[in-house]
Amino acid sequence: MTFRHTLPIQLRFSDTDALGHVNNSSYFTFFDLGKTRYICDVLGRQVPAQDMGIVLRHAETDFLHPLFYTDDASVQTRLECIGNHSFTLMQQIVNNRTGQVHCTCRNVMVGFDPATGLSTPISDELRQAMTRYEADSDDVQKG
Amino acid sequence: MTFRHTLPIQLRFSDTDALGHVNNSSYFTFFDLGKTRYICDVLGRQVPAQDMGIVLRHAETDFLHPLFYTDDASVQTRLECIGNHSFTLMQQIVNNRTGQVHCTCRNVMVGFDPATGLSTPISDELRQAMTRYEADSDDVQKG
Amino acid sequence: MTFRHTLPIQLRFSDTDALGHVNNSSYFTFFDLGKTRYICDVLGRQVPAQDMGIVLRHAETDFLHPLFYTDDASVQTRLECIGNHSFTLMQQIVNNRTGQVHCTCRNVMVGFDPATGLSTPISDELRQAMTRYEADSDDVQKG
Amino acid sequence: MTFRHTLPIQLRFSDTDALGHVNNSSYFTFFDLGKTRYICDVLGRQVPAQDMGIVLRHAETDFLHPLFYTDDASVQTRLECIGNHSFTLMQQIVNNRTGQVHCTCRNVMVGFDPATGLSTPISDELRQAMTRYEADSDDVQKG
Repeated sequence: MTFRHTLPIQLRFSDTDALGHVNNSSYFTFFDLGKTRYICDVLGRQVPAQDMGIVLRHAETDFLHPLFYTDDASVQTRLECIGNHSFTLMQQIVNNRTGQVHCTCRNVMVGFDPATGLSTPISDELRQAMTRYEADSDDVQKG
Repeated sequence: MTFRHTLPIQLRFSDTDALGHVNNSSYFTFFDLGKTRYICDVLGRQVPAQDMGIVLRHAETDFLHPLFYTDDASVQTRLECIGNHSFTLMQQIVNNRTGQVHCTCRNVMVGFDPATGLSTPISDELRQAMTRYEADSDDVQKG
Repeated sequence: MTFRHTLPIQLRFSDTDALGHVNNSSYFTFFDLGKTRYICDVLGRQVPAQDMGIVLRHAETDFLHPLFYTDDASVQTRLECIGNHSFTLMQQIVNNRTGQVHCTCRNVMVGFDPATGLSTPISDELRQAMTRYEADSDDVQKG
Repeated sequence: MTFRHTLPIQLRFSDTDALGHVNNSSYFTFFDLGKTRYICDVLGRQVPAQDMGIVLRHAETDFLHPLFYTDDASVQTRLECIGNHSFTLMQQIVNNRTGQVHCTCRNVMVGFDPATGLSTPISDELRQAMTRYEADSDDVQKG
């Protein structure tokens, strides 16, 4: 599985815990960084998180290997599939030096109107932008 | 599904984000609070997190309704099933006033020896303590 | 120096860092908890943080002794002095069992109108409520 | 006051709070990033935070202007003065586009032996490295 989108992570010492490695809850701030940057990059413009019109509805996370403060890591993001009202982003935390995958996450994102609190379709702009961006990947499935 | 173990959460303003509600990553610090307290409570003694000999291997999380700083919430934890080398804890964040469930998480915990980094069986003490604690629940399955 | 207001802190494992104790940045989330609860308690009603009309302008913090995840700690808060546009809150993180003070903070809070972004006087309601609350303390000085 | 050392900050959405801007407690994770990188850069080698032999003893922080998630910011660090057992680092959070200073912090760092928990002198290596690094600054005072 290849990822076109890679964002280096600036680890903070406060990300670690008394077990000596990065705390599990910190991974979700990394995945969040990756998702936000992915959306902006595929759209080709800055979109404030408040105005994206999508929210995280479901996350499946595998914690594979501990990550240390002195590691050099990135978060990678790719579209797995897209439907009318949702799409799935695959993400992983990868060691820049060794290539080892520390953590993976499958994220189901849903369209959402903050004004009404109701579900909305994924916008055509975002759908087309993500599909174009991932065009060189064979794995994108239409929902 | 009933939960015998409930821990009130002390929400912090830093748990919120610019969308106005509790940030997704904060939920995992709540689930972590619940797991740690659950293990200590079923064992009937304080166990430092470093000495528990178990780690989180897999988490499936559903984000159902936003939680606000002014909400009064608890994290609930119960054993779902147990095998030789792993067990599954179900957790949810629940509103103390309305009973609404804001977020659920299925956690697969595995035995782990920090000295060797290798997988280990779940200790008999913990297995028996959890099974006894949940004895009044019909849903505990032997793995 | 006596504190009338004491709030027990629910420590989280994510508050610790790889040095084995609570990370410095976590203290500020504890001080924030204490300040918010102090204001609500002296006013005798819940006030959303967004509507308090005060912001932290200056903080002087002394890190005295490391705090551990297994410690049982509280944040204590008291008014030190009050002027027209600002007041000073003294705070400390104290060990509930030993009484040891782990960290102290002097906080200068200023009146602030979020709509205009301009400085405002401290409201009479808050001024009187804090002064009454601290009346049994000899150290409150008029600014 | 000029700063030779500037580190761009990777802001996270979880750094914000329900007031819409970066939470005060997040600033301390930025200052921590700056201090750690400053020490490594002046020494010219990677030093794990656990092995630096210095701890933060006192911090004076001024919160000047709110910082937003969409801002592009850096943390700047410089040596202010150095004594036998302590030194003072000045830091500020600065907007990369406008040059506006959002927050400043004066940090008193002390030599510390984690094995004994006792105060120690600042090592000659670190003292000379910092003094050399700041040599083009007129403001470094010997303590």
